[in-house]
Amino acid sequence: MTTTTEVMNALKKVMDPELHRNVVELNMVRDLSVQDSRVSFTLALTIPECPMRDQLAEDARSAVQALPGVQEVQLALGAMTEGERRAVLAGTEQQPLAAGHNQIGRVIAVMSGKGGVGKSLVTALLATALKRTGYSVGILDADITGPSIPRLFGVHGPLKGGETGIEPVQSRTGIELMSVNFLLPDEADAVIWRGPLISGAIKQFWGDVNWGTLDYLLVDLPPGTSDAALTVMQSMPIHGILMITTPQELASMVVRKAVKMAQAINVPILGVIENLAGFVAPDTGKRYDIFGPSHADEVAQLAGAPVLAQLPIDPTIATLCDAGEIETVTLPEMGACVEALALKQPETV
Amino acid sequence: MTTTTEVMNALKKVMDPELHRNVVELNMVRDLSVQDSRVSFTLALTIPECPMRDQLAEDARSAVQALPGVQEVQLALGAMTEGERRAVLAGTEQQPLAAGHNQIGRVIAVMSGKGGVGKSLVTALLATALKRTGYSVGILDADITGPSIPRLFGVHGPLKGGETGIEPVQSRTGIELMSVNFLLPDEADAVIWRGPLISGAIKQFWGDVNWGTLDYLLVDLPPGTSDAALTVMQSMPIHGILMITTPQELASMVVRKAVKMAQAINVPILGVIENLAGFVAPDTGKRYDIFGPSHADEVAQLAGAPVLAQLPIDPTIATLCDAGEIETVTLPEMGACVEALALKQPETV
Repeated sequence: MTTTTEVMNALKKVMDPELHRNVVELNMVRDLSVQDSRVSFTLALTIPECPMRDQLAEDARSAVQALPGVQEVQLALGAMTEGERRAVLAGTEQQPLAAGHNQIGRVIAVMSGKGGVGKSLVTALLATALKRTGYSVGILDADITGPSIPRLFGVHGPLKGGETGIEPVQSRTGIELMSVNFLLPDEADAVIWRGPLISGAIKQFWGDVNWGTLDYLLVDLPPGTSDAALTVMQSMPIHGILMITTPQELASMVVRKAVKMAQAINVPILGVIENLAGFVAPDTGKRYDIFGPSHADEVAQLAGAPVLAQLPIDPTIATLCDAGEIETVTLPEMGACVEALALKQPETV
Repeated sequence: MTTTTEVMNALKKVMDPELHRNVVELNMVRDLSVQDSRVSFTLALTIPECPMRDQLAEDARSAVQALPGVQEVQLALGAMTEGERRAVLAGTEQQPLAAGHNQIGRVIAVMSGKGGVGKSLVTALLATALKRTGYSVGILDADITGPSIPRLFGVHGPLKGGETGIEPVQSRTGIELMSVNFLLPDEADAVIWRGPLISGAIKQFWGDVNWGTLDYLLVDLPPGTSDAALTVMQSMPIHGILMITTPQELASMVVRKAVKMAQAINVPILGVIENLAGFVAPDTGKRYDIFGPSHADEVAQLAGAPVLAQLPIDPTIATLCDAGEIETVTLPEMGACVEALALKQPETV
């Protein structure tokens, strides 16, 4: 059966042709209900006599109609109040050109809530594994104040601008990358921005970058459940979240907060990955539970999602990370993650 | 010689009696110059005919005069522009009562920029060590979306309100604690707030909490160089920062960003502490550089501050952290940190 989350995600792909923002982000979707195979909702227009109203309605109808299991779409047109209209227009000064040209199959957010658990490492390993499988892949580094992606792939700016937007930087194996560090003269320069600027940068990385046609865009989120996570979940058509945790109970408590945030905002969690899961001494082969016993199952139960992988601490990988050679790493554990993302395909397309 | 930073820190203790914010935060201090033993500056008043002007000027003058090395204070009174006045008044709805009663000797921020490097662990270990030395100590947990302090000390809410403000929670050994987790029904509840709310909470933890008389208040910062770090550095009289790093080069790159932020905002860095510095197998005693070789010296050089401690990974400590028994840990390495904070005393008091 189709869920309201699926309908909302489908509607996030419908752009207002004048405001260059999707109708969900513009708060246009009202009174959504799904009954069996019938979906009904109202599109609240910024101006009732909006000249683009027919195109917008048609786009929204087709997007929902294309969902598996949907037979009937009942769409009414309404209008925003003056206050709503002003609030919406206040946030739409920019006109991202690239967004209209990009075709992105699936946007996956990599999240944890806790810092230093290996979000960027898992994002990079997963991108590498997806690329090897034959998919086209991009990474949007949404960690504006602590970006790790460029270092992991050993790539640098400066960025080049194209006709419709900024060109992402390509990794050695052809993964498209966008990170704030490509914009800084020195990678150690600090980005001392408050929330609105952080959100603005992430929206630009989404709407003003020529991602082109991608099978997967992975979004590497910073720690926390504040501006960056909110912006990504509210303004991008996130297919689902991979939740990263570690054995330490203190960490898993914070990860539980991230799980609750995803649930509150109705973004599905696709799976849980546990990192820093013990250390195997390279000389003796003995395993040490450095950060305590696993709590992955408890996090997975709260998330209602499977544990996809448990990654041990491997000093070799740490060295390759620092050397910018993450793409040379092959981890059998990533196979299940690639499958999990691919297996979801028949359900929703 | 007295520095402008020392003068600004002294002025952060001068509160506007009506707006209940300090004069630095209120953007009142202008044209500050320090020449040998002579300090001159202008106090820009919100209203030129402010009835409290004499008291404010007298307070500011005494605060600066009390600095060692200052012989002469030249203070002029000015007025803000209408725009400045509105901007200042927009942020001063609350009237923190507690702030006027608290007497805090030294506010130390524990920062990293990077997540998961052990800021909260070091904060808790240092508080414990200071307390054992005989000081009165508090911890302000400024990590609003990922708080770790309550778990480390094994304490819970709910909080009690007093006449002048919120009462902090006391740890078993008498350390005063304030954290957002004391306010939540379930410690795993998510706090899904954007930047302004995060900043508001931190300001309340500072101004509305009955800290009482403390020798040290340690501020445990979240990862990043955004709202939380900015609010702490701009609105609290921070004596200095302890910067936490780890051996991984990727982490130290992000830590360098935090160092640059502190330098940009003119808050002195007191020392660098390296955490996760290798793992010693408990059975064989062999040391493994799990996250690579140390980069502490490089970070210290950039920070212009000494390396105060290098803390190895210790599974016993991880277990005690998860059990809320951090106060039972004694680490000889913390001695140098306590000394470093104490040694600074004669210089500025």
